[in-house]
Amino acid sequence: MRKILLIGAGRSASSLIKYLLENAAAENWELTVGDISLDLAKQKINNHPKATAIAFDVNNENQRILEIKQADIIISMLPALMHYTVAKDCVTYKKNLVTASYVSKELAALNDEAVKNGVLLLNEIGLDPGIDHLSAMQVINNIKKAGGEITSFKSHCGGLVAPESNDNPWGYKFSWNPRNVILAGQTTAQYLHKGKLHFIPYNRIFTDTETIEIEGYGKFDAYANRDSLSYIQPYGIENAKTVLRGTLREADFCSKWNCLSSLGITDDTFTIENTNKFTYREFIESFVPSKYNSFEDFLDKQLHISVSSDKYKAIEWLGILSGKKITLAKGTPAQILQSLLETKWVLNPLDKDMIVMQHQFEYSLKKTHRKITSSLIVKGDDQTYTAMAKTVGLPMAIATKLILNNKIKTKGVAIPLTEEFYNPILSELSKREITFNEKDVTK
Amino acid sequence: MRKILLIGAGRSASSLIKYLLENAAAENWELTVGDISLDLAKQKINNHPKATAIAFDVNNENQRILEIKQADIIISMLPALMHYTVAKDCVTYKKNLVTASYVSKELAALNDEAVKNGVLLLNEIGLDPGIDHLSAMQVINNIKKAGGEITSFKSHCGGLVAPESNDNPWGYKFSWNPRNVILAGQTTAQYLHKGKLHFIPYNRIFTDTETIEIEGYGKFDAYANRDSLSYIQPYGIENAKTVLRGTLREADFCSKWNCLSSLGITDDTFTIENTNKFTYREFIESFVPSKYNSFEDFLDKQLHISVSSDKYKAIEWLGILSGKKITLAKGTPAQILQSLLETKWVLNPLDKDMIVMQHQFEYSLKKTHRKITSSLIVKGDDQTYTAMAKTVGLPMAIATKLILNNKIKTKGVAIPLTEEFYNPILSELSKREITFNEKDVTK
Repeated sequence: MRKILLIGAGRSASSLIKYLLENAAAENWELTVGDISLDLAKQKINNHPKATAIAFDVNNENQRILEIKQADIIISMLPALMHYTVAKDCVTYKKNLVTASYVSKELAALNDEAVKNGVLLLNEIGLDPGIDHLSAMQVINNIKKAGGEITSFKSHCGGLVAPESNDNPWGYKFSWNPRNVILAGQTTAQYLHKGKLHFIPYNRIFTDTETIEIEGYGKFDAYANRDSLSYIQPYGIENAKTVLRGTLREADFCSKWNCLSSLGITDDTFTIENTNKFTYREFIESFVPSKYNSFEDFLDKQLHISVSSDKYKAIEWLGILSGKKITLAKGTPAQILQSLLETKWVLNPLDKDMIVMQHQFEYSLKKTHRKITSSLIVKGDDQTYTAMAKTVGLPMAIATKLILNNKIKTKGVAIPLTEEFYNPILSELSKREITFNEKDVTK
Repeated sequence: MRKILLIGAGRSASSLIKYLLENAAAENWELTVGDISLDLAKQKINNHPKATAIAFDVNNENQRILEIKQADIIISMLPALMHYTVAKDCVTYKKNLVTASYVSKELAALNDEAVKNGVLLLNEIGLDPGIDHLSAMQVINNIKKAGGEITSFKSHCGGLVAPESNDNPWGYKFSWNPRNVILAGQTTAQYLHKGKLHFIPYNRIFTDTETIEIEGYGKFDAYANRDSLSYIQPYGIENAKTVLRGTLREADFCSKWNCLSSLGITDDTFTIENTNKFTYREFIESFVPSKYNSFEDFLDKQLHISVSSDKYKAIEWLGILSGKKITLAKGTPAQILQSLLETKWVLNPLDKDMIVMQHQFEYSLKKTHRKITSSLIVKGDDQTYTAMAKTVGLPMAIATKLILNNKIKTKGVAIPLTEEFYNPILSELSKREITFNEKDVTK
């Protein structure tokens, strides 16, 4: 029997727990689900005979060590900041760890000791990061094996709403941390374009966009992510002249969002007091330059957007131009905007979310120049087994199985860039309708 | 005999030290000037019989306590971050302290103990903050005493170059910390305008400007400072409908600077490696959106600025469009820009700097609506006794004298907002040609 300790039983753990429970009998697993809320943990295991729910507080050192010592592998779905505490104990007690988060500097520093203790601390094995690594590295390594060379790599991903549930003028609903959506783009984007470094500051991030087309799903807006350059070395694409990673949104989302972000109302650096004395209209107009009479005047004269446009109607639909009082008593502009959007960009009980990912590889092979476009669409089943929960949780679950079955040789602090990860994980994901549609054409 | 300990003998201490030495005999002062560089301290006191130069390291606790215990008053010209260490000892050993820096939260927390020990920790007694407080509060309190009410307060200040030394296309040379000039405006500005809150994010800080006119000196650009709202309560102008503080630059400076800042090259949040492999032209073009062919193309199509314009010529004059290699090996965009500007915006040996300050007070008095405009122009004597050194150092020196002569009753952590500060200090400053020109008219 192998014991799995899963900590953090929030929304994105649903598909992960389902997979673990479905395979528990066949794989001879015993699952302990720990969460700060015992109710939530109980609800997730639903009286399954192979599972136990416990109240778990990561800051309770005695409990943490006790549970980690009893397990064969630990899966952490806790917020990224908490992984280090767990990882340190995993190294000490020689237990493997699986997370979907980026490797922090702190965590990276555990590598040598983890290797020495024969422990694998596997991170970035969710969707993005996760499936993006697996699918990109499979294509990149296949091209290299065939003697080709990557000349350009672009990769985009977005957590969106399925077309059949797309019933608001933004084509967007929250299926992921709303705060991250509000603050998106506030770190200067860095990427490589035709051999030259490019930087995009926040004031242009939602206007210097490109259009990405996915067969059968039409066109999407794409804006650049933070530091695309950091992927060059780990992906082994040092000769690529273009390297860009970006985020996908519904077509025309970015130009609408730019009307808000360029005003400054996504600012998270200062707090406004007594905001419940103000209306949303007063809030937004406090960001309008004093030379304009109103938000509408600013839109018209500065951004050349009229009140009869779709962009204006989308903004109006948010209620941010209304005379309604702000609900938050105080907050940063970003927090005030978030509290409003959380009432509008809501996935309704029957709504389905949708994950869209697309890689574009250009490469030279035997004196020809070719292009592979590899696209993934995943829709949620319902409000529990969302596309987000499936694409984050299933790679984690499959990786856990592979580790428990000794199929993974890597030790230390790792991310899934090699064959031993991407071949079995992508193969099993494809059986669950998480499949990339690949096109390889001469350019 | 009274002993003064002055620590930090940098450029802006010259007029301060000169005043203290000139008055040492008459006032029966003995001055110790301490600096991390003994040479610098020696140079500043120039063998004056009433002065001693010492090598002083603020982090050397034994020395720090010894020197503070021996002094009657301490003047700190150290960087603002170091004041707290000194202030704590001043409270312990019951010594008064004078600084020109903003009161940090840490320092403010010393208030109760300072009051208990009968100690004055006087801050913000330089130029800005300093002379701005003194001159504004004198007018505000006079209006109040006459039964008037302030309805609007605007205050602007700039450290510029004197017209006779203004020989570059920007009308600007560094007379103060270059880094602060490069990073200016990166904190969202907050102010009150006609009863409404206004916020200006970085992307509009150099375009949402206003024009300030000073008699005999023409027009200046003014951009809003960080948090003007924080002045309302300390200045006692709670009924003012407009409260705005800003920074002055030569006319048309801001629209030129906006060509650089809107590109993103004043970003200080990420480091570019191997920058000495790039030319300045490559550096600036890495911030140009990929849809434009060149910086010139971007200026033309995005900002509607042609290569024959003064703005373009000013940018070209900086050398940032040249094929010259960058000198810094690595740095943030802001650091790279700073290293270039430090070679161009240089005060030459015969140049004079100039301080410009203007307050505008609107007030109602006996059913009339009036406006006072109070303006200050100070020019430097030379490269040592700059306008900056005089306007920062003299208020500190005079405050020190007043404290030593028991003319100041305030105890605790204070800034100079009351009569006991502004009447004697402004009166003595006016004898040294630091005088506000005041106009009071019916509106």
